[in-house]
Amino acid sequence: MATQRILDFLATRRPNGPCLVVDLDVVRDNFHAFEKALPDSRIFYAVKANPAPEILRLLATLGSSFDTASVTEVEMALDAGASADRISFGNTIKKERDVARAFDLGIRLFAVDCVEEVEKIARAAPGSRVFCRVLTDGEGAEWPLSRKFGCVPAMAVDVLRHAKALGLDPYGVSFHVGSQQCDLTAWDRALGDAKRVFATLAEEGIVLKMVNMGGGFPTRYLRDVPVAEAYGRAIFSALRKHFGNQLPETIIEPGRGMVGNAGVIKSEVVLISRKSDEDKVRWVYLDIGKFGGLAETMDEAIRYPIVTPHDGGEVAPCVLAGPTCDSADVMYEKTPYPLPLSLTIGDEVLIEGTGAYTTTYASVAFNGFEPLRSYVI
Amino acid sequence: MATQRILDFLATRRPNGPCLVVDLDVVRDNFHAFEKALPDSRIFYAVKANPAPEILRLLATLGSSFDTASVTEVEMALDAGASADRISFGNTIKKERDVARAFDLGIRLFAVDCVEEVEKIARAAPGSRVFCRVLTDGEGAEWPLSRKFGCVPAMAVDVLRHAKALGLDPYGVSFHVGSQQCDLTAWDRALGDAKRVFATLAEEGIVLKMVNMGGGFPTRYLRDVPVAEAYGRAIFSALRKHFGNQLPETIIEPGRGMVGNAGVIKSEVVLISRKSDEDKVRWVYLDIGKFGGLAETMDEAIRYPIVTPHDGGEVAPCVLAGPTCDSADVMYEKTPYPLPLSLTIGDEVLIEGTGAYTTTYASVAFNGFEPLRSYVI
Repeated sequence: MATQRILDFLATRRPNGPCLVVDLDVVRDNFHAFEKALPDSRIFYAVKANPAPEILRLLATLGSSFDTASVTEVEMALDAGASADRISFGNTIKKERDVARAFDLGIRLFAVDCVEEVEKIARAAPGSRVFCRVLTDGEGAEWPLSRKFGCVPAMAVDVLRHAKALGLDPYGVSFHVGSQQCDLTAWDRALGDAKRVFATLAEEGIVLKMVNMGGGFPTRYLRDVPVAEAYGRAIFSALRKHFGNQLPETIIEPGRGMVGNAGVIKSEVVLISRKSDEDKVRWVYLDIGKFGGLAETMDEAIRYPIVTPHDGGEVAPCVLAGPTCDSADVMYEKTPYPLPLSLTIGDEVLIEGTGAYTTTYASVAFNGFEPLRSYVI
Repeated sequence: MATQRILDFLATRRPNGPCLVVDLDVVRDNFHAFEKALPDSRIFYAVKANPAPEILRLLATLGSSFDTASVTEVEMALDAGASADRISFGNTIKKERDVARAFDLGIRLFAVDCVEEVEKIARAAPGSRVFCRVLTDGEGAEWPLSRKFGCVPAMAVDVLRHAKALGLDPYGVSFHVGSQQCDLTAWDRALGDAKRVFATLAEEGIVLKMVNMGGGFPTRYLRDVPVAEAYGRAIFSALRKHFGNQLPETIIEPGRGMVGNAGVIKSEVVLISRKSDEDKVRWVYLDIGKFGGLAETMDEAIRYPIVTPHDGGEVAPCVLAGPTCDSADVMYEKTPYPLPLSLTIGDEVLIEGTGAYTTTYASVAFNGFEPLRSYVI
């Protein structure tokens, strides 16, 4: 997944220290694949996945809309050239003064998942559109979501009814099937729930217009994942099944699926050692770890492909760890990672599929290590 | 644990957004308590716990030495006024060019845990003192360390012998009993291992001089912990038991124990909600979470005391979560946190015991939220 452009960049520029390189050509291809797979859906790129200005500018030019988590992200999307009507404030947890700031910036579309949040929006962003996030079970996702966001469908009905009563525009329902979702039927179950909320409110004369189908579109790490087209077909047939001929507006919010495979992290092997002469497993320490950008190795959830200069040779299992004095900064230990026996201190390795959720997760300066640098080419 | 000075600062300055406030008077008291408890040990403050310049300057003035994890931390300690002979490069994972930079800055004391690292030091910092970290089991620690650092005692003998052969000064042995260690006998077991390394090498004419007893000294969160004096007594009697009248030089590396209870985070309640009408447990969302500085709530390892404006009233269990759109940004869910029923959106809460391992763990800008601000008073 390291494109020739990325390899050329690294070979020519030889940046010192760990860094992420993102190839905009891959982002462009991903955007077009989503457009083609779901031609009737608006694409709201999840800015949090990678807010690099170059990525936001490219996507703004291509016609993307933006899902934002904070006022800062709203401002980044505006700076990138998106108009306010192409920006959603998608975080269900907002300070009222941040809602007011977003409203001042022109934002009129807000996520909610409880009446308390509706009341903030009604006060600070009167008349705006709100969509209510509904809890889904996230079965089949590699990273099932907790119950942190959303409410049960029955409560969503109350929330949207309350929005109407307070002068807001109850615009629709959102869900998130779970990150890195590979089970195509997950959208079917969630769309069934969404439809029931539509139907219940329609009986009271409240006509919802939009379903925000969130993210969850996977990127390829070590295992193959279904292609965008397969998602498109599954989602379209689920929409037809539940909504018949009255298809709602739909939104998708790809983040990982848009930029994950566009990025590669270059890292250096700092140390290879054993803990005792009898140990079978080597410890391989890189100059990047959990606190330097690879936070998603938490619980060994995501297993990134690693390319070394010795691939093809004999391999043996390694525990992979980061460079900090923190004993929690270990990436793969429960399931050791097979790496070439000839791997050597000082070797450069490429960690692929790292375009999403790496740079901004990096800690400010833990152990004095600077945050992950990023080059967008 | 919020001192009157911290409360006054917050009342007067009213900083916007989440922030950490550290009271230097408490740091000074902690330093003196360690000095008193272990009068024969040199104190190397673990810079990574909180590298705020004001803290480093105070400790440098008080006569502290410094344990550093990177060249940046070495430079910070020097900038604070410590001379190079009061600085240890305590990370066992170092790039050879970083060893060379530290050597250029005058550093002559390095941690190692394998022959590969010894070879780097021999090349890049010839003649320096090295100490070898030995694995301990960390039993009794609230956060037992993984096997990331150190080697078995038998291998430590080889490592130090190798150092001697390469012209380095095999200076001693280090261990770490595990963070937030409350079992006073843990030092006894580790000192027994250290003594065996001393004895084996002495037979070959290699005389080690120092035992670095690391950190692990706890700070008080919700449960009482033994006081510094108790640690001092237990460690001194273990030293006597294993080393008799030939006591080695000793070093301790308190980090959490030096600054943990000196800091308080001020945070704001952003949202309180339920997921369904039937839910007993409320979700309480703060404006700080796992990615904003409270990374040590990972696996609910550390349970911070939380002070609210409604303490004393009736409480009920809450799930506590951070403000990001990340479903992993949940702090206490497995064991919900009891908080007052009258807690309200907009309330300010104090999270105590947060002077260590918070600011630098904060992510650069995850979800667009700025890193944790810090005030040292």
